Amino acid sequence: MYTLYIANKNYSSWSLRPWALLTELGIAFKEQLVPFGAGSNWDEFRQFSPNGKVPCLVDDGLTVWESLSITEFLAERHPGVWPEQSAARAWARSAAAEMHAGFTTLRTQCPMSCGIRVRLHEVGPALKADLARVDELWRDGLDKFGGPFLAGDRFTAVDAFFAPVAFRVQTYGLPLSEASQAYAQHLLQTRALRAWQQQALAEPWREPGHEAACLAYGTLVADLR
Amino acid sequence: MYTLYIANKNYSSWSLRPWALLTELGIAFKEQLVPFGAGSNWDEFRQFSPNGKVPCLVDDGLTVWESLSITEFLAERHPGVWPEQSAARAWARSAAAEMHAGFTTLRTQCPMSCGIRVRLHEVGPALKADLARVDELWRDGLDKFGGPFLAGDRFTAVDAFFAPVAFRVQTYGLPLSEASQAYAQHLLQTRALRAWQQQALAEPWREPGHEAACLAYGTLVADLR
Repeated sequence: MYTLYIANKNYSSWSLRPWALLTELGIAFKEQLVPFGAGSNWDEFRQFSPNGKVPCLVDDGLTVWESLSITEFLAERHPGVWPEQSAARAWARSAAAEMHAGFTTLRTQCPMSCGIRVRLHEVGPALKADLARVDELWRDGLDKFGGPFLAGDRFTAVDAFFAPVAFRVQTYGLPLSEASQAYAQHLLQTRALRAWQQQALAEPWREPGHEAACLAYGTLVADLR
Repeated sequence: MYTLYIANKNYSSWSLRPWALLTELGIAFKEQLVPFGAGSNWDEFRQFSPNGKVPCLVDDGLTVWESLSITEFLAERHPGVWPEQSAARAWARSAAAEMHAGFTTLRTQCPMSCGIRVRLHEVGPALKADLARVDELWRDGLDKFGGPFLAGDRFTAVDAFFAPVAFRVQTYGLPLSEASQAYAQHLLQTRALRAWQQQALAEPWREPGHEAACLAYGTLVADLR
């Protein structure tokens, strides 16, 4: 059976991606959660992950790291990871790869924290640009492939890649078009994301560095944990 | 036939990746080079690329963007893009994805410029950490799969992903282990990288922003262009 190494469900946006994919597709795996400590987690995570980061998948002695690589590894072994139709699959992979290396301002100014609600002081130009691109990308997928998921009528890896953005929309009340808001809500209502959120809220850990980062650009208005 | 949109060969490390892959694998394509202008190229590149960046591949009206997505698109259509053996393929994809989203200090402090030689003022701790990881990763691949390429005896996509690092090693004289230096040299001697370098040196354009970025952490010692 696969072992998936992840960190705190409340904070770890990268962990969420393969976890949501495996869960939505009903692929059995054993979860190994290693909570974030203060400062760098390099030394501790290096004990199981070559790049010192989560997520990391271990399958029968073979270690696969980086969310996109884990996704392709699973796609070779299980149906349904990417859309079946070739053009939808190319679109989904492009959108997932764009998320993998991009949207730096969104990721920095609005770190994932499933259990809190924050009012941003402002939506500055760089964040606005990231949100405009998210919105455009989402509407493009929903229009092209008919929704309600990004690349068609079922959850695929590209939805897993944008799952942390849905949590950010919820936490920071991010402004998006109606169609994109509806998609984010749809994503948050999937079995995987509801389970993730419930488990995130039940976690006992509060890591001060992550807590502070989530409030660097806004004010706490609720803590549901 | 595929059309591959790229920017200046001297500067554009992301363009190099799919270009080198297509060239080494002997896959026919039409090159469309759009030189970098001053400042943001978003508006100009958006005319052909959804994320406003290069590279971007167009195949019979279908647009595929992001180097990793282009790679997977090609892998579905041509043999040899990834290693044949399953464990080598998983390793190659993980290493390529790690490059895709990582090594930020190496990319910032040592931008690709094929035609110049620079003496760095110092190799600071963050750059040292990036280089240590590159070195470890390369030696891991060379040891595991026998070399002389990263994942075995032929050029695959993971070599394409690290091709810009080979040019950076050459430009900035980056300190790496003997095994890694030999690999970088081997990569620079491939048909694709020799052609890329030759064409980079012949380019007429000098974009001041890129020129300055290459000298932000060092002193120019040679300009071969």
